[in-house]
Amino acid sequence: MRIPILKLYDCLLVSIQWELDDQTALQFQEDLLHKIHETNANGVVIDITSIDFIDSFIAKVLGDVINMSKLMGAKVVITGIQPAVAITLIELGINLDDVHTALDLEKGLEKLQQELGD
Amino acid sequence: MRIPILKLYDCLLVSIQWELDDQTALQFQEDLLHKIHETNANGVVIDITSIDFIDSFIAKVLGDVINMSKLMGAKVVITGIQPAVAITLIELGINLDDVHTALDLEKGLEKLQQELGD
Repeated sequence: MRIPILKLYDCLLVSIQWELDDQTALQFQEDLLHKIHETNANGVVIDITSIDFIDSFIAKVLGDVINMSKLMGAKVVITGIQPAVAITLIELGINLDDVHTALDLEKGLEKLQQELGD
Repeated sequence: MRIPILKLYDCLLVSIQWELDDQTALQFQEDLLHKIHETNANGVVIDITSIDFIDSFIAKVLGDVINMSKLMGAKVVITGIQPAVAITLIELGINLDDVHTALDLEKGLEKLQQELGD
């Protein structure tokens, strides 16, 4: 299984709607970085509204993919972080200090446009 | 495997990026109709840019899901139909007469907004 990555204008949209297994998460990491390179995307919105639990491996992959995307020059907004996911991320010490977050996909896209407009 | 369906404002976005097997196609049909009902979406954009071949079953499911979505009151735009897919759809007599199509996701969304604005 691979997660579809949608290109909309200069942004990429990803909605993760089911729990990821380790292989899918790593495949997603690779796919997203390739897509950023291929499309010259300036921003990425990753919506995880439907995820109500993540394990340490997935949390690490998520943290990594955010940092890797930034290295490649794309701003990342994570949307729809649920309580249990927020708890896991903080408890595991995943560094999301300077990651933008928003409530849902619409607000995430708006935030990204603001950021890119700066 | 299930295909993620993204909600953006009053539209649903779907990007089918890998060949569908029969089970996934039927699951997608069900998921999309549920999502239309759940979100009160007025429009759906289905992007099939990455699909360069469809078989008769998938073509039928696609035709069906378009008609079902319309029945439920959602306008459908299909984007990124590739030559071989266009040939298959016509040869199989899948009725896409009054379906709106566009080149890519951006243009599909614009077309949908125009339609919904009417």
